[in-house]
Amino acid sequence: MEFACKKINIEEVVRCSLGMKKPEFKLFNFMLEHNKRFTIIELSRKLSLNRTTVQKIIKKLVEKELVERYQENLSKGGYLFIYTIKNKQFLKEKIKFIIKKWYENVNNELERW
Amino acid sequence: MEFACKKINIEEVVRCSLGMKKPEFKLFNFMLEHNKRFTIIELSRKLSLNRTTVQKIIKKLVEKELVERYQENLSKGGYLFIYTIKNKQFLKEKIKFIIKKWYENVNNELERW
Repeated sequence: MEFACKKINIEEVVRCSLGMKKPEFKLFNFMLEHNKRFTIIELSRKLSLNRTTVQKIIKKLVEKELVERYQENLSKGGYLFIYTIKNKQFLKEKIKFIIKKWYENVNNELERW
Repeated sequence: MEFACKKINIEEVVRCSLGMKKPEFKLFNFMLEHNKRFTIIELSRKLSLNRTTVQKIIKKLVEKELVERYQENLSKGGYLFIYTIKNKQFLKEKIKFIIKKWYENVNNELERW
């Protein structure tokens, strides 16, 4: 699609509106496609990334409230962190709110033109 | 301002939304700044462009309904064509309508995402 003669694809709109860099977006997309519970180890295997990298990325996604972290107690003691992506409709609403603000910004600039 | 991580300035929004190429935009801007009646000869002098070029550009601006053409009868017989730029508020409304459509497009794409 186009906005002010600039080609914009929806992936860029999603990525930019949620303030993600490309590696974050890759992980985000993977979790969205396989909408299930993941551990860091599972994600690092599936995406062929080392654990530290996945940990850093997932931390950002949790901070941005795009991914949730649960603590699961293990029967033999100890616990495991489980990560799930937020509901897609929730994400859409979040993005919609941001592009609405972009749009209002363009309109305000035009008003001052 | 920004839209989906792309820098956008208001001039580009105005130019693109009204479907103008750069030479058209230059003439358009000049007429807007000096909001008065012009003949082709006056415009070609002020902008240091030859008459044929101005004629071609102004034709496009008239077709796009950004500039209006009047016929003025001369006292000694014959007539002259006079050009005026459309009212700025009218232009703003036209642009607003188009950026609203851009925005709706982005939203529709997001809905399908």
